[in-house]
Amino acid sequence: MNALLKDIRQTPLLWLLAFVPVVFVAAKLKPEAETLLFVLSVLAIVPLTVLLSHATESVAAKTGDAVGGLLNATLGNMAEFIIALTALRAGQYMLVKASIAGPIVTNTLFILGASFLLGGLKHHVQEFNQVNARVLATMLFLATVALLVPSAITRADAAGVEFTNKLSVGLAVLLIITYALELLFSLKTHRDLFVSVSHGGGEEPWPMSVALGTLVGVTVLVAMVSEIFVESVQKAAEAFGMTPAFVGFIIVALVGGASAMPTAFSGARKNRLDLSVGIALGSASQIALFVAPALVLLSYFVGPTPMNLQFWPGAVVMMLIAALTAALVTNGGRSAWYVGVLVLMVYLIFAMTLYLLPPQVQ
Amino acid sequence: MNALLKDIRQTPLLWLLAFVPVVFVAAKLKPEAETLLFVLSVLAIVPLTVLLSHATESVAAKTGDAVGGLLNATLGNMAEFIIALTALRAGQYMLVKASIAGPIVTNTLFILGASFLLGGLKHHVQEFNQVNARVLATMLFLATVALLVPSAITRADAAGVEFTNKLSVGLAVLLIITYALELLFSLKTHRDLFVSVSHGGGEEPWPMSVALGTLVGVTVLVAMVSEIFVESVQKAAEAFGMTPAFVGFIIVALVGGASAMPTAFSGARKNRLDLSVGIALGSASQIALFVAPALVLLSYFVGPTPMNLQFWPGAVVMMLIAALTAALVTNGGRSAWYVGVLVLMVYLIFAMTLYLLPPQVQ
Amino acid sequence: MNALLKDIRQTPLLWLLAFVPVVFVAAKLKPEAETLLFVLSVLAIVPLTVLLSHATESVAAKTGDAVGGLLNATLGNMAEFIIALTALRAGQYMLVKASIAGPIVTNTLFILGASFLLGGLKHHVQEFNQVNARVLATMLFLATVALLVPSAITRADAAGVEFTNKLSVGLAVLLIITYALELLFSLKTHRDLFVSVSHGGGEEPWPMSVALGTLVGVTVLVAMVSEIFVESVQKAAEAFGMTPAFVGFIIVALVGGASAMPTAFSGARKNRLDLSVGIALGSASQIALFVAPALVLLSYFVGPTPMNLQFWPGAVVMMLIAALTAALVTNGGRSAWYVGVLVLMVYLIFAMTLYLLPPQVQ
Repeated sequence: MNALLKDIRQTPLLWLLAFVPVVFVAAKLKPEAETLLFVLSVLAIVPLTVLLSHATESVAAKTGDAVGGLLNATLGNMAEFIIALTALRAGQYMLVKASIAGPIVTNTLFILGASFLLGGLKHHVQEFNQVNARVLATMLFLATVALLVPSAITRADAAGVEFTNKLSVGLAVLLIITYALELLFSLKTHRDLFVSVSHGGGEEPWPMSVALGTLVGVTVLVAMVSEIFVESVQKAAEAFGMTPAFVGFIIVALVGGASAMPTAFSGARKNRLDLSVGIALGSASQIALFVAPALVLLSYFVGPTPMNLQFWPGAVVMMLIAALTAALVTNGGRSAWYVGVLVLMVYLIFAMTLYLLPPQVQ
Repeated sequence: MNALLKDIRQTPLLWLLAFVPVVFVAAKLKPEAETLLFVLSVLAIVPLTVLLSHATESVAAKTGDAVGGLLNATLGNMAEFIIALTALRAGQYMLVKASIAGPIVTNTLFILGASFLLGGLKHHVQEFNQVNARVLATMLFLATVALLVPSAITRADAAGVEFTNKLSVGLAVLLIITYALELLFSLKTHRDLFVSVSHGGGEEPWPMSVALGTLVGVTVLVAMVSEIFVESVQKAAEAFGMTPAFVGFIIVALVGGASAMPTAFSGARKNRLDLSVGIALGSASQIALFVAPALVLLSYFVGPTPMNLQFWPGAVVMMLIAALTAALVTNGGRSAWYVGVLVLMVYLIFAMTLYLLPPQVQ
Repeated sequence: MNALLKDIRQTPLLWLLAFVPVVFVAAKLKPEAETLLFVLSVLAIVPLTVLLSHATESVAAKTGDAVGGLLNATLGNMAEFIIALTALRAGQYMLVKASIAGPIVTNTLFILGASFLLGGLKHHVQEFNQVNARVLATMLFLATVALLVPSAITRADAAGVEFTNKLSVGLAVLLIITYALELLFSLKTHRDLFVSVSHGGGEEPWPMSVALGTLVGVTVLVAMVSEIFVESVQKAAEAFGMTPAFVGFIIVALVGGASAMPTAFSGARKNRLDLSVGIALGSASQIALFVAPALVLLSYFVGPTPMNLQFWPGAVVMMLIAALTAALVTNGGRSAWYVGVLVLMVYLIFAMTLYLLPPQVQ
């Protein structure tokens, strides 16, 4: 417990934990104040995701590299996963899909672009291991392509929902097999190719009991706050004049990815771009290969109706462009600040488009 | 003749030649047993394509490098060409187009992916000449783009058939000129850049007379079996529950490409990935630059009506993704087994989509 | 003045200046002879753009590297800009958009391809600085993507004109900020990464007064001839059987880019491909990052109605393919003549498609 408290004292972001009880009280007292609940739940989720990643890494540090790597990889996008699962249970499939597509785009463009920019402002030209980066970028591109096949090859309206559902289940099974093989590859047969990507940076690991307790407790808290978040998000979006697509793609993705950002950005500042590239692209691949298919399969058990992988065409274009951009900018193994500006600009343009987009065409 | 018989004895795949007479007898006795005829014709075509490539290489070995290279390059996709031509004569344009698009996708994704996987299971990391691979991948990408312009830039329904036909003829002429220049480049001015890609592996060449006789005789046999294949394929597809798109894209392409696979795969096992990459990408480029335009031009002489290069949108997406994938995975000049898994997964996903796709949207 | 006259005597292209008075006289005497006026105005614009680039470089040479680079970069596409502005004032938005998309495609495919071909015919294999080329190609890809977002993500018909207009203005502002940062990057913080790209080749700079006078005088002349060009182009196109898309994409782009070609091509012949790649890709990026957004913003002041960045789908595909092609072919830092042939073939195919395309689908 002391270790936990010490971390909280040292990490200003964790002071936001104070909002966790506040959001529960507010939800009880003023369930109709959706805008307030939305803001509070965002403020509460961010520090929880940070705790979650500390806890995961502490467990990982104690269990040895292979199991630890597995844990890190599987629980790394836990926050996005829980939020999407909550939306799935509520039958809000558009939000679920946006919270698959959004983190792929955000991790690839925002985390990568901001890392390049922040690193580049400090270092004239930064070099990173281009072999690693290429493997990761290829993996991300192919994972994205695989995820997008139902949307890109067929038009749902012509082919029928039954076909799309069947295809999505088959696809989900193939993607999860690919993910399992990826873990075998990166954690076992070809560990030498991968830099160890530890989200936690320099913190010392917590004792096992604290870590496991935190893991379970915080997961439950995230699930509870997510429920408030998902319930309030639509109304709040309207109040702020934000489109549902913008909320799903941008807000959910930034909230869910908040815990990975400090490590990615400080890695870039310390001229360890490999770390930043690994977090950005690894995390995006994981969403495509694991979170998305898991949600499709789970929709048969927890959702009101099955969910498929048919995305809105604009989302397809954005994911493909994000993956291609990652492949292009990491290809040479060198970066400077302006590359970050360009990548961030593409992200800003996507965000602006989603913000302005009339809801009926999404 | 002895050389021919010796090869047949030593290559188990050639024992399938026994099916060649069987299919003719069956077609005579039971012309209505389409599913049987389909299976028999597939079993008969595969060994014939192997013989065809042995014969081509034997002639090539005797005629010196330049003429030999020309022969190898031009006759390398003979089987696919004859099958497509038979479908063209029968007016089955959807099958013709699928047998253009299918081999591009199959060679690029299946042969390349399986080579990476099989090689990677034996060797930790494999390196190959990235300059060659890049030239080939660029060539394939641009050839695919060129082939797809009518489908990608215009919607046939809006622009009219007359425009698409005129454009296709112009395109076919440009593609064949590009192909002729490619032969000039790879066989004459820049031979040093290309690894000699010999499909035949270690076999000793046949005497000229045997080789030429086999070439003519087997071509005739392939043409005759193709006729049975094309006639039976649609009915058989229905019987097996396969869509026409699946048959054209996957079955025809795998049957036609069977002869190239042993060399590509054994090259990968022997850590000669240059050979595998050369076969996979070279063969796919050749379909785009030579087979496709030749079929368009021939359709004015042998088909019931002119054929154009308007592809079904899903086929366009698949070809473009295949070409981009080839460019990305060959870019670094390094490979490991998981890269093969990823490429094969994309292929499997395409195959699954085509298998499930309701016929009316293809 | 002597310097100016000396240049004119030595540069055969400048003899075309004789057509400048001719076109004005013809426009006065025979305003209805549109085909003649079109041909004359093309012949008059080409030498004027050459003078314009000489003048810009002379000013640049005198003002030091930073300001000079800024001038070169900003005035480098002056001719395209003036033509587009004239079309904008005349409310011919289709021509304006074509004269944004056309130069991007033409600079990337035609200038790059022809440089590779011309250089490759003289040198067996040419090497160029692949780090520079990659930065430029990435910049071009991301700039093109940014420009295309409104067309690629939304369908204008569904989202409404008001949305597209708002998005286009926001986009224009973002693009211009990106352009300003690019100047900061290439002229100030990372000048070491860029080869100095001087369009003028070996000519000696003019004295400041001559250069400034020429700059102002020729800009006025280009504007006046452009007016005749824009007025006559549609009728002339019909007379020649050319579609409006072909005129905008191909003719306007070749005319506007004529001044950059001699330097790019002679650079390639002298085995200085860095120069050619810099001109081709730099110029295309500049159109996307500066000319296009400037026209959108200016349309609120000089055009009859606001102009947005919604492009015809075929134009979107062509620009994306051009940018991807540039990224692929410059990736390895090596070139041979056949790479030039392939790139030019893609350009020819685009040109052929536009030439044949029925006007109603553009």
